[in-house]
Amino acid sequence: MPVTLSNATSPISPLSIAIVGMGTVGTGVAKVLLEQSERIARRAGRPIQLRHAVVNDLKKPREIELPPGILTDNVRRVIDDRETQIAIHLVGGIHPAKEIMISLLESGKDVVTANKALLCEHGPELFARARELGRSIAFEAAVAGGIPIIATVSQCMAGNQITSISGILNGTTNFILTEMIQRDQSYAVALRRAQELGYAEADPTMDVDGTDAAQKLVILTQLAFGTKVKLDAFPRRGIDKLDLGDIRYAAELGYTVKLLAVSKLVGNRLEVHVSPTLVKKESPLAQVHGAFNAVALTGDVVGDTWYSGRGAGQLPTASAVLADLIDMAVGRAQLTFERLGLWNIEPQFELLPQAETSCRYYLRFNIEDRPHVLADIADVLGRHDISIASVIQHEAPETASGDSFVPLVIMTHKTTAGHLDAARLELAQLTTLRPPLVELPVAG
Amino acid sequence: MPVTLSNATSPISPLSIAIVGMGTVGTGVAKVLLEQSERIARRAGRPIQLRHAVVNDLKKPREIELPPGILTDNVRRVIDDRETQIAIHLVGGIHPAKEIMISLLESGKDVVTANKALLCEHGPELFARARELGRSIAFEAAVAGGIPIIATVSQCMAGNQITSISGILNGTTNFILTEMIQRDQSYAVALRRAQELGYAEADPTMDVDGTDAAQKLVILTQLAFGTKVKLDAFPRRGIDKLDLGDIRYAAELGYTVKLLAVSKLVGNRLEVHVSPTLVKKESPLAQVHGAFNAVALTGDVVGDTWYSGRGAGQLPTASAVLADLIDMAVGRAQLTFERLGLWNIEPQFELLPQAETSCRYYLRFNIEDRPHVLADIADVLGRHDISIASVIQHEAPETASGDSFVPLVIMTHKTTAGHLDAARLELAQLTTLRPPLVELPVAG
Repeated sequence: MPVTLSNATSPISPLSIAIVGMGTVGTGVAKVLLEQSERIARRAGRPIQLRHAVVNDLKKPREIELPPGILTDNVRRVIDDRETQIAIHLVGGIHPAKEIMISLLESGKDVVTANKALLCEHGPELFARARELGRSIAFEAAVAGGIPIIATVSQCMAGNQITSISGILNGTTNFILTEMIQRDQSYAVALRRAQELGYAEADPTMDVDGTDAAQKLVILTQLAFGTKVKLDAFPRRGIDKLDLGDIRYAAELGYTVKLLAVSKLVGNRLEVHVSPTLVKKESPLAQVHGAFNAVALTGDVVGDTWYSGRGAGQLPTASAVLADLIDMAVGRAQLTFERLGLWNIEPQFELLPQAETSCRYYLRFNIEDRPHVLADIADVLGRHDISIASVIQHEAPETASGDSFVPLVIMTHKTTAGHLDAARLELAQLTTLRPPLVELPVAG
Repeated sequence: MPVTLSNATSPISPLSIAIVGMGTVGTGVAKVLLEQSERIARRAGRPIQLRHAVVNDLKKPREIELPPGILTDNVRRVIDDRETQIAIHLVGGIHPAKEIMISLLESGKDVVTANKALLCEHGPELFARARELGRSIAFEAAVAGGIPIIATVSQCMAGNQITSISGILNGTTNFILTEMIQRDQSYAVALRRAQELGYAEADPTMDVDGTDAAQKLVILTQLAFGTKVKLDAFPRRGIDKLDLGDIRYAAELGYTVKLLAVSKLVGNRLEVHVSPTLVKKESPLAQVHGAFNAVALTGDVVGDTWYSGRGAGQLPTASAVLADLIDMAVGRAQLTFERLGLWNIEPQFELLPQAETSCRYYLRFNIEDRPHVLADIADVLGRHDISIASVIQHEAPETASGDSFVPLVIMTHKTTAGHLDAARLELAQLTTLRPPLVELPVAG
């Protein structure tokens, strides 16, 4: 007789779990587990008993009140507890997060994690170790919190070869970009506001320099293309050097700027990059505002699909952790992990060399305001097979400084990064140009 | 040792399946199974062997060539074949689709189906029978083809109480609406074009009158709210009586018109309806064009999420069927079906009586063009607690017919259907009005 929801309240032995790491997300998970215990038991087919909650500092004030005896600052209490079957691993960074995960697996526990940095860097090794031990790791919460993108890529698209992933995978930078665009504010001002509102951390480096999005992209690329890509093997740019002026020119051209993470098949090779990118104002990606994430996923059978939701934050990420926890209780997560064997297949696709990647480019030059400069630039671009789609040069304002350099914006037709590299070398010889030369890819 | 992808080509016994119904979707499924057999075997952990393909008419020309001995017009060949473990049930309508599904289950086969009409009408009964027999039914393809909405609602949102589902669930009507809006064409012209392009059937009734969307909504409502709703227990309107004039007025007011299927919690009761609805032009729903579907899903933990993709068609629906087939091969689908017991829980939410539902309304009156008519209407609305947000009345064109009736459009603030019903009765007494009175709900 299968277990039905109406049986869920009958005396079935509870499933014992621990939360290792009671930061924002851990607190959210505990909150839902305690407040909605009946719902979670119904969905999981049995009650979930929270036996341990591991924290760094026992004295720190907590947002929620836990039942007595649960809170500990000693992770060994979890590792040594044979009753605890599932550990929710919410320790950030690489060390000791990695050692803790291995100890949890070795002590016979299945692991649910949200640590994308760890999976990006050591995923294949950790997954192999879990398999050796007959254990499982679930990680829906590691990428795009509230969007079930791991389940979608690894299960719902199982009949497809995914051909393209293109997404906004970092909520912090999308919040900052939205502020810059909607309030016409500089990066520095928008970052400060994001920090005040809790959307950016005190040290926002990993978010704003594109690392966080790139780590998530590595995980998705592994799942979708069976290809292990190293974090430093593909171009990665953040928004920390983005100038408000370029956002304004983009708007004038009918575009907005988003930090896009892209992994797509070009023929039989894989193009992977993270970069601030011009996207058409009417496109769905341009409509993703604030701390939301979004992913456009194309499969060779299903065609184009699209997902969006909150990418981070206490409850959206907790929702993903809970889905994994319930999947583990039901036994689905173990099947997914064991049978799909996602992380130990051979690499299937080579990376497309950066010089061969092609797209349209937004270029902003800093040119001397005098005759023939545009002709010189157009000549260099033309000789390198870069054709011009549109140009903006506004009349120079009268300046007291006597500075005669003005911005010139060129949108190109499709060209390769190799052509652009070659053109850039020649352009550097022109005395009528001054750095910086801003280059941003254009989506589509 | 878990089965890994690299083992998939080693001699593991194949999984034998049959496709019952070789229409558009069945042909698509067979096509991918035959052309991508290696991929499907890798994802399923074992080769999939297509043993039977049941058709109505053996003489009909086929889009694909099947291996010899597979094609049959006798479904008993599948039912009596003990080797066949999974049946892909792609028979439309209720009879004999229901009897065929029951025979397949009784002969020990798990079933993957795309038949929403059958699940809408007899889902609980079929699911109970499958459980009795220890069999499973998977039905991702029954709702919103290319969008994994069944998996999302029943698995990925498992930690949540879903609070709202709002979607474009019928691709045919969305195609027709897109044509009407973008080409400024009448319903009849747009329908003809949809039929020419294969987006609408020769008899489009079930699509255009809202039945198809309502059937899908019944299935989603059962999954998300554990509540069995009868098809005739909630208001259902299609687009077949929609006037191009109303689409134009909506545009003037900053809205577009979409056929929305809505199921949402209002307090502790459930509001369910299908209706052409005004949605703000900037909203994501307004950006869903052509044959695409989309679903906005809100959970109490995750917040707002959003999904879109092709809602129908050969390959998008085949993609959903294949995901279910692979899930069955892996054993996940059976766990989902058995353990979640989604269809046999008690109803949890009552329907909100229609009179108590509330929203903003778009109203178009046909009024006599003379003094005090607007005042009379405003007076009736005001006495029924319906407050006016905006009004459009254009200067009447000079007509040769001497007809002095002109359109008056009123957008109301939020009010209840009960208030509107009462006001309508009184408005019917005004001799300065002539039918029709057009009423459309406004989303948000």
